[in-house]
Amino acid sequence: MLKISLAQINPTVGDLAGNTRKILEYTALAQKAGADLVIFPELAVCGYPPEDLLLKKHFVADNIKALDALAKKIRGLSVITGFVDSDAGGKIYNAAALISDGKVQDVYYKQELPNYGVFDEKRYFSCGKNSGILTVKGTRVGINICEDIWINEAVYKAQAKAGAKVLVNISSSPYHAGKLSIRQELLKARARETKTHLVYVNSIGGQDELVFDGGSMVMSPDGAVLARAVQFDETLLNVDLSLPNNPVAPVLESSEEIYKALVLGTRDYASKNGFKKVALGLSGGVDSALVACIACDAFGPENVTAISMPGPFTAKATRQDARQLAKNLKIEIKEIPIKRIFAAYLKTMAPYFANLRPDTAEENIQARIRGNILMAMANKFGGLILTTGNKSEMAVGYCTLYGDMSGGYAVIKDVFKTKVYELARYRNSICRDPLIPKSVLLRAPSAELRSNQTDEETLGSYEQLDKILMAYIEDRASPQDIVASGIDAKMVARTIHLVDTNEYKRRQAPPGVKITPCAFGKDWRLPITNRYKE
Amino acid sequence: MLKISLAQINPTVGDLAGNTRKILEYTALAQKAGADLVIFPELAVCGYPPEDLLLKKHFVADNIKALDALAKKIRGLSVITGFVDSDAGGKIYNAAALISDGKVQDVYYKQELPNYGVFDEKRYFSCGKNSGILTVKGTRVGINICEDIWINEAVYKAQAKAGAKVLVNISSSPYHAGKLSIRQELLKARARETKTHLVYVNSIGGQDELVFDGGSMVMSPDGAVLARAVQFDETLLNVDLSLPNNPVAPVLESSEEIYKALVLGTRDYASKNGFKKVALGLSGGVDSALVACIACDAFGPENVTAISMPGPFTAKATRQDARQLAKNLKIEIKEIPIKRIFAAYLKTMAPYFANLRPDTAEENIQARIRGNILMAMANKFGGLILTTGNKSEMAVGYCTLYGDMSGGYAVIKDVFKTKVYELARYRNSICRDPLIPKSVLLRAPSAELRSNQTDEETLGSYEQLDKILMAYIEDRASPQDIVASGIDAKMVARTIHLVDTNEYKRRQAPPGVKITPCAFGKDWRLPITNRYKE
Repeated sequence: MLKISLAQINPTVGDLAGNTRKILEYTALAQKAGADLVIFPELAVCGYPPEDLLLKKHFVADNIKALDALAKKIRGLSVITGFVDSDAGGKIYNAAALISDGKVQDVYYKQELPNYGVFDEKRYFSCGKNSGILTVKGTRVGINICEDIWINEAVYKAQAKAGAKVLVNISSSPYHAGKLSIRQELLKARARETKTHLVYVNSIGGQDELVFDGGSMVMSPDGAVLARAVQFDETLLNVDLSLPNNPVAPVLESSEEIYKALVLGTRDYASKNGFKKVALGLSGGVDSALVACIACDAFGPENVTAISMPGPFTAKATRQDARQLAKNLKIEIKEIPIKRIFAAYLKTMAPYFANLRPDTAEENIQARIRGNILMAMANKFGGLILTTGNKSEMAVGYCTLYGDMSGGYAVIKDVFKTKVYELARYRNSICRDPLIPKSVLLRAPSAELRSNQTDEETLGSYEQLDKILMAYIEDRASPQDIVASGIDAKMVARTIHLVDTNEYKRRQAPPGVKITPCAFGKDWRLPITNRYKE
Repeated sequence: MLKISLAQINPTVGDLAGNTRKILEYTALAQKAGADLVIFPELAVCGYPPEDLLLKKHFVADNIKALDALAKKIRGLSVITGFVDSDAGGKIYNAAALISDGKVQDVYYKQELPNYGVFDEKRYFSCGKNSGILTVKGTRVGINICEDIWINEAVYKAQAKAGAKVLVNISSSPYHAGKLSIRQELLKARARETKTHLVYVNSIGGQDELVFDGGSMVMSPDGAVLARAVQFDETLLNVDLSLPNNPVAPVLESSEEIYKALVLGTRDYASKNGFKKVALGLSGGVDSALVACIACDAFGPENVTAISMPGPFTAKATRQDARQLAKNLKIEIKEIPIKRIFAAYLKTMAPYFANLRPDTAEENIQARIRGNILMAMANKFGGLILTTGNKSEMAVGYCTLYGDMSGGYAVIKDVFKTKVYELARYRNSICRDPLIPKSVLLRAPSAELRSNQTDEETLGSYEQLDKILMAYIEDRASPQDIVASGIDAKMVARTIHLVDTNEYKRRQAPPGVKITPCAFGKDWRLPITNRYKE
C-alpha cells in the first residue's frame, strides 16, 4: 500500500515562482517522510481562483513553464499538483499533473466545472474527457478535481470500475461555516460507494473574499476517517494507507472555526497585498471590538492601531470602553475628535442647510469625517484600514457609504450581528481575563450619530432581523415564506425593502471574508436596478 | 409574405407588470399597423439581465404568470416575446414564446448560452433542444435567441433547412462602440447563408452598467438591409417583407453614437431607480464639463445642479470656467468652498502630521471633503450624485477613493481621456455657441490638489497612456507585446503596475455606462490579490 503525503499548502494567486518553490519545499519534506506520492491542491501552481488572469495567454503559458521547470526537479517520488493546461486549439483546462522522474507523466482535466455560487469556471475552462487513471508504484490511482467528486459519477465511479484502489481528489474548496462536515459526509459516502481509499487534498489561505480551510483527509474504503489535517494551517499530512493509525486532527467547535476563518482571511488579504500593519476605528461598540481582537490575533498587537474618533453623540461610557479594550489588547490607541471638523462642515453648509432640521445628512457627515480621518492616517503612515461593519448592517444599508464603509478590508461583513456577539463571547472565553469589556456586550447597540439612537429602534430586534435576512439571502425565500415561518409581516416587508434598495451600497463595499453559504460578493449577483419587490 | 412589426422596447429588470403592459401597448400599435406578427426582445417580460433574481423560484413563477396573463389578451395577430420558462425538474430556460388566439402556442429555448464577457448565462439557464420552427399565417418561421445566431450553426442552419422562410432572432445585445456594424455584418452573412429573411429585434435601455442600443433590423435573403430601426430609442418598426422599400434609419457617426449611449445609460439608471434630479461637482475641467452636458441632455438643465467646490489649489481660470459652463448650460451652480473644512482637518490632524511634509494624505483629504459635501447635499435635498472620473484615471488609480469617486453613477468611467476630449468637441459641434468654453479644452488637465500639478507630469501623455491601456485591457496584451508596438518600455511597465495595484479602487467604484468592449465591470474580473505582474 502507498505512503501518501497530503500537502495542504497556501498558494498565492499569480505567484508562479513562489507557489512552485513551496511545492518543492513540501515535496522535499514528503520525501524525507518516506512518501511514495505527495499531493498538492487544485491549481496549486497558479493559485485559486485566478479569475481573468486566465484570459491572458501569457499567464497560462507562464504557468505551464513553471510546472515544467518544477517537474525537472522531481526525482524519487511522485507528485500530483493542480495547474492550468492548454491545448493546441487554445482551450484551457483545470488540470492535474502526475510528475515523476523529472517530467510530467500524465495529465487529467477536470470534467465538472462549477459555475454557480462564487464559481465561474465555465467562463474559462473546457471540460476534460480522459479517464484520470494513473499508476503510482504499481498501484492504480484515480485522480479527479474538486467538483468532479461532488456530482460527476461518470468520473469517480468509472475510475473505481477501472480498478483504481485509491481515488485522489484535489480541491480548492472555499470555506463557509460547517463546510468541513458537509465535505466529510460526502467523502465518506464516495469511499463506501467506490470501495476505495479516498484522498482529499484541500488548500488553505485567503484570496480576496474567499478562505480555503484545508481539513484535508483520507477515508478508508469502509467510509471511516483514516486521517485528517487541521483547518486553516499549512501542513503536511503523512499517511500510510496500510496502517490503521494515522493522525486525525480534532474538529473545531463552530465559533472557533469561524473565528479562525476570519483571522486567516484578514491576515492573508493584508500580507498577500503587502501590508504588515493595520488600523481601525474603535468606537467602543461590539463590532469594532471584535475586529480589533481578530486584528490582534492576525497581526500581533504591535501592528494594530486603534483610532477613537469621538463625536458630539459619543457617550462617555463607549469612549471609555474603547480605551479599556485597547488597553486589554495592548494596542496603541489614538484619539482624534471630530468636533472641530464637524463644526466646520456645519458652518460651510449653513447657507444651504439653515432652517432645515437635522437628518441623515448631518449623521452621514460625521461618519464620513471619520472615514476621511482613517484614510488620511493610512495615506500618511501606511497600513491597511479595516472596516468594522457587520452583515446585518450591510444587508439593510444601516451604514454610511464613504463613511464607516471606508477601508481596505471589511473583516466581519459576512457576520450577522447575532453571530458577532457569539464570536465576541467566544474570544473572551478563551483567555483568562476577558478582552472585551462586559459593558460592550451588554449595552444596546447604537451608531451614536444622533442623541438617544439605538439600532433596534430603527431596525427591529437583531434576532428577528437576522432570521429574516438568513432566509431571504441564503434560501432566496419569498416574503410569504418568511412570514409563514412566524415572523411579523410588516417587519419582513420593511427588511426586504431595505435589502433590495441598498444593493448600491454593497456594490461599493470593500471585500471581506466569506463565512456563510451566501456572502454579498460573487455569491450574490443582484441587479441594482430592479423593480421586483418580493 | 408576412407583415412584421419589430417592437424595440425598453423593459426594466424585474418590472413584470410594467413590461407586459408595454408589450400589450406595442402589440396594439402593431395591430393598428396591420402586422401579422409583432416581435419583442429577449427576456422582454422580465428584463435583461435579471441576474440572481433568476435564483428566486417565485420570480420565475411570477414571470410565467405574467406571460400567461399577457397571452390571454392577444387576439388577431401573433406575438413573439422573450421570457424565462421552467420545466418540471426546476431547470430554467431563456425562452421565446409564440402567442396567438389568447394563448402560448409554442416555446423555443435558447441553445447557445454566453458565459464570457459580461455574460453569466450558464449560471442560470439550461440549454434547449427543440427546433424553434413555428408557423405564422402559413409561413414557416425559425425562431432563435441572441447568441444562437452568432455561433450555433446547428440552430439557424437547421431551421433554414427545415423550410423556414423567415428567421427571427430576439436579442438583448449590450452596446459597445461600433457594435451595430459588427452585428450588421454578421446578420448579412447569416441571411445569405440561409437564404432567408432575417429579422433581428434588439431591446434598448440602460440596466446598471449595460446599455442596449436597439438598431433592430431586417435583412433580405441576399444580405441587403431591408429595414433598420434607430439606435437608443423605443420604436415600432413596421416591415412588409414583400416590399422593397421599408424604413432604414441612418447609421450614427461614432462620437454621436457613444454620446447617445452615455445619455441613455445615465438617464435610465437614474429614472429606473427613482431619481429625477442629479447633481455633480463641477471643477472647470473637461471631465466634469462633459458629464454636465450629458446630464443636461439626459434630464434637462432644470434637473441638474452643479456644485463648485474651490480649494486652496483651484486656479481662478478653472473656477471661472465652471461658472461659464453652468451659465451656458443654464444649470444652477452652487459654490461651496472647502477652505474652512480643510483647515479644520489640518488643525485636527496636526498632532500627528506636524513636521511631516504634505503628501497624498493632504491631497486626498481635499478630494474627500468634496465627496462628503456632495453626498451631504444629496442626503439633504435628494437627487443622484454623478461622478466625473474617466477610464484612464480609473485604470491607473489617479482618483481618490471616497473622494471624487463618491457618487451614485460614474457616467464616463468607461471613456478614455482622449475620447473625453473627442466627445466634448462633438457636443460643442452640434450647437451654435459652444457649451464647453474653449479654455477647458485647451488647458493642461490637472487634479488641482497641490500647486503646479498636471496629470501628464504624473502619468505621461494621455495619448500614449490610452494606447497602453487599450492594449492591456481590451486585448489582454502582455507588456512585451505592448512595448513591441513601439511604446516606451518604462512607461508601459509603470502603467501596468498602476493598473494592477489599483484593482481595489475600481472594486469600490460606482457603476457607469459600458461603451468599450471591456469595461471595468462584469467584463473585467481580475483578483485584487494577485502577484502576477505581466
